[in-house]
Amino acid sequence: MNISINNSKENEPKEETKEVSASELRQDIVSGDWVVIATGRAKRPGDFANFERNKDDKGIEECLFEDPVASGQEKDVLIYHKADGDWTLRVFPNKYPAFSQGELPHPISEGPYFAMSGVGYHEIVVTRDHYRQLAMMDTMEIAEVFDAYQDRYLEHMNKKGVNYVTVFHNHGKEAGASISHPHSQLMAIPVVAPYIKLELDGAEKYYKSNKECVFCTMAEYESEEGKRTIFENEEFIAFCPFASRAAFEVHVMPKKHSPYFERINDEQKVKLAEVFGKALGAIYKALNDPPYNFYIHSAPCDGRDYPHFHWHIEILPHTATWAGFELDTGIEISTLQPEVAAEFLRKQLEK
Amino acid sequence: MNISINNSKENEPKEETKEVSASELRQDIVSGDWVVIATGRAKRPGDFANFERNKDDKGIEECLFEDPVASGQEKDVLIYHKADGDWTLRVFPNKYPAFSQGELPHPISEGPYFAMSGVGYHEIVVTRDHYRQLAMMDTMEIAEVFDAYQDRYLEHMNKKGVNYVTVFHNHGKEAGASISHPHSQLMAIPVVAPYIKLELDGAEKYYKSNKECVFCTMAEYESEEGKRTIFENEEFIAFCPFASRAAFEVHVMPKKHSPYFERINDEQKVKLAEVFGKALGAIYKALNDPPYNFYIHSAPCDGRDYPHFHWHIEILPHTATWAGFELDTGIEISTLQPEVAAEFLRKQLEK
Repeated sequence: MNISINNSKENEPKEETKEVSASELRQDIVSGDWVVIATGRAKRPGDFANFERNKDDKGIEECLFEDPVASGQEKDVLIYHKADGDWTLRVFPNKYPAFSQGELPHPISEGPYFAMSGVGYHEIVVTRDHYRQLAMMDTMEIAEVFDAYQDRYLEHMNKKGVNYVTVFHNHGKEAGASISHPHSQLMAIPVVAPYIKLELDGAEKYYKSNKECVFCTMAEYESEEGKRTIFENEEFIAFCPFASRAAFEVHVMPKKHSPYFERINDEQKVKLAEVFGKALGAIYKALNDPPYNFYIHSAPCDGRDYPHFHWHIEILPHTATWAGFELDTGIEISTLQPEVAAEFLRKQLEK
Repeated sequence: MNISINNSKENEPKEETKEVSASELRQDIVSGDWVVIATGRAKRPGDFANFERNKDDKGIEECLFEDPVASGQEKDVLIYHKADGDWTLRVFPNKYPAFSQGELPHPISEGPYFAMSGVGYHEIVVTRDHYRQLAMMDTMEIAEVFDAYQDRYLEHMNKKGVNYVTVFHNHGKEAGASISHPHSQLMAIPVVAPYIKLELDGAEKYYKSNKECVFCTMAEYESEEGKRTIFENEEFIAFCPFASRAAFEVHVMPKKHSPYFERINDEQKVKLAEVFGKALGAIYKALNDPPYNFYIHSAPCDGRDYPHFHWHIEILPHTATWAGFELDTGIEISTLQPEVAAEFLRKQLEK
């Protein structure tokens, strides 16, 4: 292993006013994308907890998801209950869907352009407690959430016109959560997501060159190396990616090769919930309840096989504003080395 | 021209509480990316002016760029003056560069990963007046800014280790401007930006199929069609792209084919400044001084020719939060049809 000039500065005393930054361009080995780790603008890991935030000012009294009728929850498509009868999780169609049911996607052309009708499914997954976000939940509660994701994924994946299913979660206003009550979203859409396409192509290319899955290679390397690992058990590993796009980005990945999230079994769901819960809990503590997004990247359900893909979850806390440079180039600038972020996250687990 | 089902709803009375959204998936004909125009969540165009914003609370007294010494401006690399002697624009190296000068990019490997040292140039372009943002400037003032961009672009593009030059501008805190005094940034970097790569590939592919530049096709079609056009003169056109990623996105493009921004002549700079100024001014009025980013997409300077590329400027006001869905899929959801946005922007020019 080569040690870079920049990495070797990790343990040096921090100079607050240095003129010249030590920055490093890191390449994502799956997509080929670049990120910049610009430590000349670095803050200490703990400083990221002090960002400004706009807390949702609506209280529980005004929460739509506390009132099943107001939110249109009468159309539940899935509901889990506790033994005593109260519900713990429910899934219902989004009242204002980005993709809505209808006929099969209908092609639309105008001059040189192409479009299609935005046909699909858009559902909301809500857990019971207004204040108990995923980062606070125990393993079995989180496993139930993944169980609901899988249930709805399986429901939609084989429908006509559905070629990709996205499952994601927004927490905090800056991360796009317009309602603060914990909820995830599932959309079944007619096109393969462009970012997934990049990963599929990258994984295919890597396999052709190396006869190995690029994600398996990463999971194995990170588990052995350890410096970017947050937590792992026999089935899953959580680590800060080498080419993190933002400080404290964490990926959670099965250690055994599997392209398809929806094929996870019950035992694996519990193992996933343990690792995911530790990672999210560490982010929550390290950054003092930051806004974040997470989402599942799974192989498309367009009828093809994707043997070289490897499903995973990406957790992205809002520790940076992606501005002109990122929008222009697609290269993200992060001001904290993933190795330093991972060490700081591991420390939270000792508390 | 086919009229889509969704487009035909444009003139119907708006139903505030409709249950099912009419959404449309539009494809970017350059990159192949998708966006969703989800009018079921639509607001009226004027409603976008009412978003919350965090204005920079530092006044002119504390502005770094008002104090050349504090901001390190003693290292000016370019300065323009008025006849009476006061400066109007200056360019100096960023004190905290994301890319900094050094030896040639140095490869770094770690396990399966690849990186290189972040070597390059990072400069700041500052105009004189703290309160006079680009949207308020007249044509000749804006032409001077483009002149400075070109000057510095030409300075860096042929340096060893430089393969791409990005020029961008952040306005407003939410758009990543940490200092409110109007300033742009230029970075000369060792890698071709991934987003440019997508556009280069898309333009190449389109040329192979159609024997025409995809950007020329768009500029010509938009000029003829008119419904998405904001303003045009004989050299440039500003329009809301068919596949707008956010409400009020505007692209400014030369009508005559040219891959390279840096080859613009003085007369063209004035024509560009007129069209760009109208577009930015319309956005400023329509959205009540919104945060925005703009950036120039020009062909790489890596020694190759890119005859099928066509330089342009993208203006992206912050009218949406890109959250879990966008981060997961790379598909942006916009809640306003580009045709409606363009009409609203054109109206601002009549005021």
